Amino acid sequence: MLRLARSAAFTARVARPVRLTRGLASLAEKYYPNEPTVPVIKTELPGPENKKAIEKLSKVFDTRAAYYVADYYKSNGNYIVDVDGNTFLDVYAQISSIALGYNNPALIEAAKSDQNINAIVNRPALGNFPSSDYADILAEGLLAGAPPGLDKVWTDLSGSGANETAYKAAFMYKRAKERGYNTPFSEEEIASSMVNSSPGSPQMSILSFETAFHGRLFGSLSTTRSKPIHKLDIPAFDWPTAPFPKLKYPLEENVEANAAEEKRCLEQVEKTIKSWHNPVAAVVVEPIQSEGGDNHASPAFFKGLQEITKRNDVLFIVDEVQTGVGATGKFWAHEHWNLPTPPDIMTFSKKAQAAGYYFSNPELTPNQPYRQFNTWCGDPSKAIVARTIFQEIIKNDLVAQTAKVGDYMYGKLEALATKYPKDITNLRGKNKGTFIAWDAESPAARDQFLKDCRANGLNIGGCGARGIRLRPALVFEKKHTDLFISIVEKVLSK
Amino acid sequence: MLRLARSAAFTARVARPVRLTRGLASLAEKYYPNEPTVPVIKTELPGPENKKAIEKLSKVFDTRAAYYVADYYKSNGNYIVDVDGNTFLDVYAQISSIALGYNNPALIEAAKSDQNINAIVNRPALGNFPSSDYADILAEGLLAGAPPGLDKVWTDLSGSGANETAYKAAFMYKRAKERGYNTPFSEEEIASSMVNSSPGSPQMSILSFETAFHGRLFGSLSTTRSKPIHKLDIPAFDWPTAPFPKLKYPLEENVEANAAEEKRCLEQVEKTIKSWHNPVAAVVVEPIQSEGGDNHASPAFFKGLQEITKRNDVLFIVDEVQTGVGATGKFWAHEHWNLPTPPDIMTFSKKAQAAGYYFSNPELTPNQPYRQFNTWCGDPSKAIVARTIFQEIIKNDLVAQTAKVGDYMYGKLEALATKYPKDITNLRGKNKGTFIAWDAESPAARDQFLKDCRANGLNIGGCGARGIRLRPALVFEKKHTDLFISIVEKVLSK
Repeated sequence: MLRLARSAAFTARVARPVRLTRGLASLAEKYYPNEPTVPVIKTELPGPENKKAIEKLSKVFDTRAAYYVADYYKSNGNYIVDVDGNTFLDVYAQISSIALGYNNPALIEAAKSDQNINAIVNRPALGNFPSSDYADILAEGLLAGAPPGLDKVWTDLSGSGANETAYKAAFMYKRAKERGYNTPFSEEEIASSMVNSSPGSPQMSILSFETAFHGRLFGSLSTTRSKPIHKLDIPAFDWPTAPFPKLKYPLEENVEANAAEEKRCLEQVEKTIKSWHNPVAAVVVEPIQSEGGDNHASPAFFKGLQEITKRNDVLFIVDEVQTGVGATGKFWAHEHWNLPTPPDIMTFSKKAQAAGYYFSNPELTPNQPYRQFNTWCGDPSKAIVARTIFQEIIKNDLVAQTAKVGDYMYGKLEALATKYPKDITNLRGKNKGTFIAWDAESPAARDQFLKDCRANGLNIGGCGARGIRLRPALVFEKKHTDLFISIVEKVLSK
Repeated sequence: MLRLARSAAFTARVARPVRLTRGLASLAEKYYPNEPTVPVIKTELPGPENKKAIEKLSKVFDTRAAYYVADYYKSNGNYIVDVDGNTFLDVYAQISSIALGYNNPALIEAAKSDQNINAIVNRPALGNFPSSDYADILAEGLLAGAPPGLDKVWTDLSGSGANETAYKAAFMYKRAKERGYNTPFSEEEIASSMVNSSPGSPQMSILSFETAFHGRLFGSLSTTRSKPIHKLDIPAFDWPTAPFPKLKYPLEENVEANAAEEKRCLEQVEKTIKSWHNPVAAVVVEPIQSEGGDNHASPAFFKGLQEITKRNDVLFIVDEVQTGVGATGKFWAHEHWNLPTPPDIMTFSKKAQAAGYYFSNPELTPNQPYRQFNTWCGDPSKAIVARTIFQEIIKNDLVAQTAKVGDYMYGKLEALATKYPKDITNLRGKNKGTFIAWDAESPAARDQFLKDCRANGLNIGGCGARGIRLRPALVFEKKHTDLFISIVEKVLSK
């Protein structure tokens, strides 16, 4: 029954025709009748209230990475307001984590609902005492938006937790394949696991890519290779890495070189899987490496990668923590690849607000209870929020809208790149919704650009060494795009 | 100013005289005017609605560890209700995670508040865009209940995350001590960190104790030593362990033997710190090992342990994920020890609903931003919930109440242990509030006892191989204790 519900919702999502931009624009106006029409910068940045607020907070909490202290009560739609009343058009959206804009009325209703209040006040240990409505909450939400072919879900609390529990599932699966799914553990395994030694704690590994980002706890950080500052001083597992394609732009002028680069990387992946001293249980990959610089690869690359994992009997884990939930113009970015079979595991967090992983193979559920387990096993309140986000996206065709808006935005940026070829290089993300990025001339130029944008009322983020990434919410429209482009041009023209 | 606010709240908490039980009983009646007066078991267990609900949920979520599917709408105070309408007196409380009982009216108000709705709907990336009210939310909540001497907090999402970020802080601190707090990283460190190698990813370690439980992600799991089922098939760091005292009961009859056992364990800790091949950055310890069997040690042991950490220049991390927030008759269990100086770091989660760690030393904040960092850096909604939990506990002297109720409960259990000496052995937790446990004759007898208790309307959990642990909410009173004792006696008398 749950499967049917999910399939029906999913079919509806796929089959529904794309509405016209006009219809979509009125939706955003419905959501946000009082959305500002332009950014307003009233003070120098940071303003006096910000300075006070940072000083106060910094006594008890690390604020050195703070752009500013935000007033979320006044933030609205695509606009974020700081405590000085400065109003920014937001194309960063809490590091890609706001799907429907600030103070979305549907989300407010969901948050206020008796069901959500109940879930907060009586937060269950879902593994031992699941709540009576959790099956429906999942079916109507997280599973209604599940990627094609993946019909089960494990809920966790963060992107790091989602990836780490996925890795745990992969290790247990891989050892079960070797041992037999229902074969009991040996005495030696049992004893050695308690002292962190092989064979009970096997010397196995997860292969990740150079410049990947998969989180910052110990297992996920061992697969993160984005920047030294993420990794320095933290012990890590002896796990392998392979090169991620470094594509040349524009793509249409570099077809052969890019194909050769992807081939080189794939060969290296397979060579590493075959030769790494700690056997590889899974390969984890982002559809677009985000923190690491918005690095793209072609569908052919990912298809080839999946073939390699199948050929070598390792699992294929797609990390959609940042790429998922509509921003690329598909609900899940890996849908762009048209894989012949689904990935083994796909992880999510951020815009879903809930976190976890999807899977299908029943053998990815370990052979005994309490193996994939913790006190909370997720959070029904976040699953309720996810349900509304997914339902609003599906009901209002926000993925299709984002695809259109992204195409429009990309075209405008392409034109700007012609005008400012030094400042906008390696423009990327064509046909990937609003998941667009480019490179500045240098890290310093990038940092200055971001700062200048903020001074002009645009909240925007970087990635990699000199990348600028766009991560607006799914309610970002043509009119916001025009404003965004005008600010970028204003900054670049100086 | 924040410090003052915290100190004032803290002083008020310490200075306020303990109210009489009469006054406290009326508080619970105020909270829960409709709390059931006795458990009611209407069906065989699991009942027909449970079977249906489990079948439905199991299609998409692992339910093999489920005791039953709970109806949290009908649960009230100390009573949890299942989907068949069976009503259990609850001394397990979502694996020790419900502080104020089910559907607590103060918590419902907090959950419904505009502030909480705002925090849910506009969930911020707290490191980059902290919310305008976060400083006050922390000051009035998590910091109002902070352990003596620890005035800063890092917020995370789970007990595992709290411990892992604490370990990260310890590793960064330890390396900074070696390198100099503001000394730049070497080229070799930077390059090696990116391939998970030393010196950038140092081969350092956290020392934990045998039968400890600190969580189930890769770093925390490497310090967990409770049961093989928690660890099998998961790669782990080569980190050391030391024996935790195995005390003999009753304590007053085994003073010398227990002192010798604690001395033996402390000697082993120091020997291991001095000799382990991967240098030890921190020792992590639970005040009472909970999942591992409710294993206690004396204040002298923990004082000795702190002395060892100081003498060897390693950090002393106290994991209060399960022991914290009042259940032991102190707000934090380590307050029972009267340490001469606070621990370096104390972690929390569960009953706080929010998670994270407290600390004081400013050098435990890494020398650069983005080193201790992730997308959300906590969750203001959970901090709002924590604030109400802490405020209600402080305002209503629930820690003192729990101490009294625990003493009463312990006395009753002591009497039962005399009557049923085979069934109640190693009774422990005297003067530790309701954080009481005992051992059954065997693992099978324990499992049967838990099952028989449920059949008689008592929701109760185990720990370790044959332990029975009590983890009621802080609103568990004398009348609930009498009922609890009568059910235990009924089960044992069969």
